[in-house]
Amino acid sequence: MTQSYVQEFPLRLAGFLEHAAKWRPDAGVVTATGRGTTARIRYRDLLQASRRFSTALRRFSVGAGDRVATLAWNTQAHAEAWYGIAGMGAVVHTLNPRLSPDTLGSMARQAEDRVLVVSASLASLGAELAKLAPSIERLIVIDEALDLGALDAPVPVSLHGEMADYPPGEWGGDDENAPATLCFTSGTTGEPKGVIYTHRSSYLHTLRLLQAEVIGPTAADRILMVVPMFHANGWGLQFAAPAAGASLILPGRHSDGESLASLIRTEGVTVAAGVPTVWLGLIDHIDQTGEDLPTLKRIIVGGAPMGSQLMERIERRLGAIVQTSWGMTELTPLGTIAPADLPCRDAASAGRVAVGVDLLLKDENGRPLPDQREAEGRLHIKGQSVVNRYYGQSEPAVDAEGWFDTGDLARIGEDGSLFITGRAKDLIKSGGEWINPAEIESIVGASPLVSQVAVIARLDPKWGERPILIVEMADNATATDDQLVQRLRGRVPSWWAPDAVIRVAAMPLAATGKIDKQKLRDAFGQGEEAPGARQLPETEN
Amino acid sequence: MTQSYVQEFPLRLAGFLEHAAKWRPDAGVVTATGRGTTARIRYRDLLQASRRFSTALRRFSVGAGDRVATLAWNTQAHAEAWYGIAGMGAVVHTLNPRLSPDTLGSMARQAEDRVLVVSASLASLGAELAKLAPSIERLIVIDEALDLGALDAPVPVSLHGEMADYPPGEWGGDDENAPATLCFTSGTTGEPKGVIYTHRSSYLHTLRLLQAEVIGPTAADRILMVVPMFHANGWGLQFAAPAAGASLILPGRHSDGESLASLIRTEGVTVAAGVPTVWLGLIDHIDQTGEDLPTLKRIIVGGAPMGSQLMERIERRLGAIVQTSWGMTELTPLGTIAPADLPCRDAASAGRVAVGVDLLLKDENGRPLPDQREAEGRLHIKGQSVVNRYYGQSEPAVDAEGWFDTGDLARIGEDGSLFITGRAKDLIKSGGEWINPAEIESIVGASPLVSQVAVIARLDPKWGERPILIVEMADNATATDDQLVQRLRGRVPSWWAPDAVIRVAAMPLAATGKIDKQKLRDAFGQGEEAPGARQLPETEN
Repeated sequence: MTQSYVQEFPLRLAGFLEHAAKWRPDAGVVTATGRGTTARIRYRDLLQASRRFSTALRRFSVGAGDRVATLAWNTQAHAEAWYGIAGMGAVVHTLNPRLSPDTLGSMARQAEDRVLVVSASLASLGAELAKLAPSIERLIVIDEALDLGALDAPVPVSLHGEMADYPPGEWGGDDENAPATLCFTSGTTGEPKGVIYTHRSSYLHTLRLLQAEVIGPTAADRILMVVPMFHANGWGLQFAAPAAGASLILPGRHSDGESLASLIRTEGVTVAAGVPTVWLGLIDHIDQTGEDLPTLKRIIVGGAPMGSQLMERIERRLGAIVQTSWGMTELTPLGTIAPADLPCRDAASAGRVAVGVDLLLKDENGRPLPDQREAEGRLHIKGQSVVNRYYGQSEPAVDAEGWFDTGDLARIGEDGSLFITGRAKDLIKSGGEWINPAEIESIVGASPLVSQVAVIARLDPKWGERPILIVEMADNATATDDQLVQRLRGRVPSWWAPDAVIRVAAMPLAATGKIDKQKLRDAFGQGEEAPGARQLPETEN
Repeated sequence: MTQSYVQEFPLRLAGFLEHAAKWRPDAGVVTATGRGTTARIRYRDLLQASRRFSTALRRFSVGAGDRVATLAWNTQAHAEAWYGIAGMGAVVHTLNPRLSPDTLGSMARQAEDRVLVVSASLASLGAELAKLAPSIERLIVIDEALDLGALDAPVPVSLHGEMADYPPGEWGGDDENAPATLCFTSGTTGEPKGVIYTHRSSYLHTLRLLQAEVIGPTAADRILMVVPMFHANGWGLQFAAPAAGASLILPGRHSDGESLASLIRTEGVTVAAGVPTVWLGLIDHIDQTGEDLPTLKRIIVGGAPMGSQLMERIERRLGAIVQTSWGMTELTPLGTIAPADLPCRDAASAGRVAVGVDLLLKDENGRPLPDQREAEGRLHIKGQSVVNRYYGQSEPAVDAEGWFDTGDLARIGEDGSLFITGRAKDLIKSGGEWINPAEIESIVGASPLVSQVAVIARLDPKWGERPILIVEMADNATATDDQLVQRLRGRVPSWWAPDAVIRVAAMPLAATGKIDKQKLRDAFGQGEEAPGARQLPETEN
């Protein structure tokens, strides 16, 4: 066989940890284990621990391509399990502990998970899940100690501590296109669908994160990963940190403002990543205590729209740069991000694409918009780490030209900045015309009187659908319905004004922390005059 | 056929230019065309021009895999040719115009170049080369206008301007492992050998350059590429700049201090890359004029060792951070680089590896050193963009474990920093013990009295070899031989002191700008007592 001109170099995720173990001897993972206590491990020791984890899996007869589920918080042992599973060629299937047992069971059955790695504090949920998913042959309990006698598990249970003297397993794997991880979509927009990430797709995604214009960590950074590992592949930070030789700071179970402030201060965190509400909690806390967090240089936000008030508060109060972003489970997950060195940052912008990703706006009939700049369309994406086919499905998830339809509505500025303007399926069709709830939510939601808002369609015998506003007021705030709706005057067409305002004590949230619009629709979306009526008038559709 | 889970995304070099053309509408390439004059083109227009170049090549019956040579300065048209050649699937073979026609002819014959793209100012050298390499069927003259009548070319000659109304050619190419570029090693260390870079290897190398810890350009950067495109693949900057959306500033033929200072000032250059001597010229110039270059933030140096005096002068005078680096043609070319955010920069350090590259020190018998830190060994490298086999050779260029022997001697610090300590083949064996000329050169060369120094072996009837010092004095500097050698006292073993000091008016340089030690050996390396004697005494070896 003729030798290749360039050395063969399969893109393996284990390569990131091996690099950090060899070349960044002082960097590693720090985990908050409780109020003010931490556990720490250097990458070189994490590498050995991960290889012992692989040995354990092999003893449980797990082989290449088998799925191993994790139901766990952001901890050192969870990171160790990721590398241990993917390193030996099996597939990490992350499960979100905030989902219902039924949903988890459906995912685990679909994935045919063979082993479940579970945080001790989630062990009873794990045991329940094992009853619902017969493919699960064993539980491995990680993180804290656990009294196994109290656990009603239908399968054998191993403790992480048992692996301590296992020999480190060998890692191989030259097939960069082999599956490495599996994550189901959040399910706020229909049935959960599984997305497979290959070693190659996650490796290239990681290299994208390392670009100076994207997240761009260096060995001098200490990255606080508040985004859970089970959310959209953990935004890939468990790979990006060791790849850059940066230390990874994991908050464990606690992501309240006080816990995060303490961790940032004691660990000298320089970059932090999480959904906007997490940072609201942090700012509220440090406003109360008056403390500062001088090491924190940047905050990466994603997963939900960022309010301009919050962004301004963070930048002013913390002196940290906010990088807004947009992504999806189907994108590994990063789609776009605002560069840290952009002179004018804009909370409404989702940033820009980096090389390797391309965007296209289409009209409602699937035709590309003739002008791709400054016009709203349905956002499609193509690129090196974008889904092509969902797990277990035979049909591709992309159109004939290979574009994946994100379901988002968006506009792209002249400079390439992306603005997500709504979800296509959330649009309200009133009298044959479209109303975009996201625009109304953004205007009403900017009021300091409200905590969270959602606009949904209510069936209407005359107009087909009409918008209604669901609102959770801010603490101690009062306002009449008119005062709330007043903000829309002159900013949206008058007929966009919601027909009703419904106040809720607490906005229902889906397991990912996003507002659960399906629950709101079920509760409030039926016609006013005819509760339970689900049929649209004939004039619609 | 089952669809892949993730979208297919071949790593094609053309993707960098396509990205910049679509997503960074204001960025592009600026070329110095003369004293104070520039030409400029946006990436989107460069993309179209490059595709017209592909059309021209197709009309000349160039097909995928064919080699097209370039003998040209750093200009817009040269960049256009690169993308035009590689974009359509042909192979860019860069030639160094400072090499002799014979050497160039040997390279072109070995590569079987079919077309030669040549700068107008190099057209007669190109015509001469075409006579020596019968595979060349056509010349394409770029850059300035040229009177073809005065050119004695053995093959048809086309002018770049003829392509102006060609239709842009289609680019395809899904095979990321196809060759994209070809560069011969410099030949200061033996016969030139061809190194093939594939689309994939250069793509991954580019992503490495984009990492925040490596070069890390962003769309806000304007990168001055002084390193010639024909030197070691142009350090990959012609790919990294559009990939990051940064503008690329090309100096054309002029890299003297005055030209560079003018270009940096008028174009607002933020990052500049080139060999150390270029920056010496720049600093000397601005010291004379007293001007400042406030936009310049970083200087990447490579290709030769960096003196600590020069580094200090640059950082103090320019306020720019110097990133030292080490690379080779065989590495695409970057091996290691000092991160810009390293608190203590050290001229002697070559920086560190980024993920995707691994280093190993071996002893003279090819066994890995038991301790890889703080011990000197022969440097081996493995990684995603490292040569595996030279062009046209059947034997691999790596050892049984896949390591490429760089021929450099090196030591690696505890923190992973690499220090190149010499070239294995330059070592002098005196009385059975090794003397490292690089150490002597570094000590004597640090004297402000000398401009350039080289230490070579001279045959010696008693000791086998003895070191002699060749020196080019600084302007107007005088020193006795003893004064020069005096600096070594207490810093190297006393028996390392050179037996003779030979003064030359100008140090002979190879075509890459490095000192031509072979020429020095030919002139001064014969035994003192027995000129011409080449046989070592039996007690040696």
